[in-house]
Amino acid sequence: MASERLTYKDAGVDREAVAGALGAARDRIRGTYTPQVLGDLGQFAGLFHLRSYRDPVLVSTIDGVGTKVLLLREAGRLEVAGRDVIAHGVNDVAVLGAAPLFALDYVAAAQLDPREVAALLEGMTAVCREEGIALIGGETAQMPEVYTTQGLDVAACVVGVVERDELADGAKIKTGNVLIGLASSGLHTNGFSLVREIMARRGWTLDAVPGDLGAPLREVLLAPHRSYRKPLLALARSQWLRGAAHVTGGGIAENLARILPQSCRAVIDSRLWAIPRLFGVLAQAGNLDRAELLRTFNMGVGAIAVVPRERGRLSVDICRANGAEAWIIGDVVAGERGVEVR
Amino acid sequence: MASERLTYKDAGVDREAVAGALGAARDRIRGTYTPQVLGDLGQFAGLFHLRSYRDPVLVSTIDGVGTKVLLLREAGRLEVAGRDVIAHGVNDVAVLGAAPLFALDYVAAAQLDPREVAALLEGMTAVCREEGIALIGGETAQMPEVYTTQGLDVAACVVGVVERDELADGAKIKTGNVLIGLASSGLHTNGFSLVREIMARRGWTLDAVPGDLGAPLREVLLAPHRSYRKPLLALARSQWLRGAAHVTGGGIAENLARILPQSCRAVIDSRLWAIPRLFGVLAQAGNLDRAELLRTFNMGVGAIAVVPRERGRLSVDICRANGAEAWIIGDVVAGERGVEVR
Repeated sequence: MASERLTYKDAGVDREAVAGALGAARDRIRGTYTPQVLGDLGQFAGLFHLRSYRDPVLVSTIDGVGTKVLLLREAGRLEVAGRDVIAHGVNDVAVLGAAPLFALDYVAAAQLDPREVAALLEGMTAVCREEGIALIGGETAQMPEVYTTQGLDVAACVVGVVERDELADGAKIKTGNVLIGLASSGLHTNGFSLVREIMARRGWTLDAVPGDLGAPLREVLLAPHRSYRKPLLALARSQWLRGAAHVTGGGIAENLARILPQSCRAVIDSRLWAIPRLFGVLAQAGNLDRAELLRTFNMGVGAIAVVPRERGRLSVDICRANGAEAWIIGDVVAGERGVEVR
Repeated sequence: MASERLTYKDAGVDREAVAGALGAARDRIRGTYTPQVLGDLGQFAGLFHLRSYRDPVLVSTIDGVGTKVLLLREAGRLEVAGRDVIAHGVNDVAVLGAAPLFALDYVAAAQLDPREVAALLEGMTAVCREEGIALIGGETAQMPEVYTTQGLDVAACVVGVVERDELADGAKIKTGNVLIGLASSGLHTNGFSLVREIMARRGWTLDAVPGDLGAPLREVLLAPHRSYRKPLLALARSQWLRGAAHVTGGGIAENLARILPQSCRAVIDSRLWAIPRLFGVLAQAGNLDRAELLRTFNMGVGAIAVVPRERGRLSVDICRANGAEAWIIGDVVAGERGVEVR
């Protein structure tokens, strides 16, 4: 034993394989670079030249994709996890009226298959190009004994910018404003631990077509997280976006509450949009009570924008013109700060 | 089964416990806020007011702490993982001559013990205060089946800023410059998978005092990652910092090579500093060859600054005056781009 010559591979870590996968993705990553990116890959930190702002506020967020990654990995669809993690961050930035500028990613597993690293980067870089943001940094870690064999985690930080006087942080929300709901593409990245528990108890595979779902779970559950950058920034440019919420963990109520000022109460009428069948199927299969359902899933609403009542219809039109189905789903009324979903 | 009412807890996720731990850490987190932080906790993204820069370049990095976290968790020292992850990012930013401004953290495990979340945040916020940076965002995820029972991951993104004409990216390094090595506090966060493999094969616990180490492994291995912000930014302010490298995974050669221009070769003389005993002990116990040793561990040098020869002695003094032991460890010579450690 004493004479055995150890190397890093003996610790279950294949550095060369991952370096190879990252190397192969170089051109994809460079393909996301906007003119503000300085330097190239391989620096200790990503460089972004912030030009031409009067009074810039940096708007930054970090997120993961949760246990949806387990289903995506099982299905060989890790590019969706890459899309999800960037879209999530883009939305967190855009709800404040800010333009996302760049992203950094973190990928870790017990051992990383180079093809999986490539799929993740394919998804991330595709969204970055669509959103006009640069992937300027990342870390890829192999951590045996931290991750399970099937486990893999992916997180990303997204940084954006907004002029200070154009920040839409909800402070200007007031009684009489209306709530615009923007359609989600499904669960996005929330509620998957509960969904997987339901699937396990019901014996559902990804190919199951439970209840009146009308399509296999694979198709419905694994849809990528939608980006709301375009509709939200179009509303922000219109100058009447009072605030917006990204509906993630905690559901509509918990997330909308984050932007409400004191003495403003949001009342949402759930008959004002068509709740996708998936949520009914899950509620029934898991015998979920309404409160659990509402605080776990987005119920078909992936983001909510708050605008003056007289701009409500026009705001819906602007969202639709920018690729997002949207509806007026409720009002801001005077009352105890909070959100009521009727 | 159909009548059993499922909740998120059935999926092995205790949202309330983690929310409680984060809530309790609120004041600690607010304690890191610098005057540029706008708003408060609970927004969709952290807000940082970037004031008074002529021509700002944002300098951003994301990092984890690797499998050191397993030893730290076992030892009940997770506050060190919090310190490590912030210090790592601070150094990645500071080697470019940039001042770190703020950080965002990501913490995930199968299940999170609120006391462990508290310890991580205690370490992160302590370094943030020492470094004058704000912890403006974070995500805490419970992911059963992704993480092992003993597994836990912590990553952080650090964003800094530098005036474009003060960026120290290595482009100005030239023949005749000298290399200043800054003392590490031990392994920092690199090589732990290999170290743990050696420990397992040798039957060493954290209380072992192998070879001529002179102290228990616990003390030597678990030392926090050192921050080089002060010495590096002091050199940057002096205007003669040509470039700097953070010595992490890949060791001295691979990291220093990242900043060398074409036709510049770095030659390091390893007799010019005292390599801490730990590295000899590990080399012997794992029967590591010299190449593996050098590309896995920092060998006592946590960062390297490149300065003009005539500023070498003064640079060493500046580093020491800013809390970092330092030595001239080599030269930049003409030759094929690369690093030679003799």
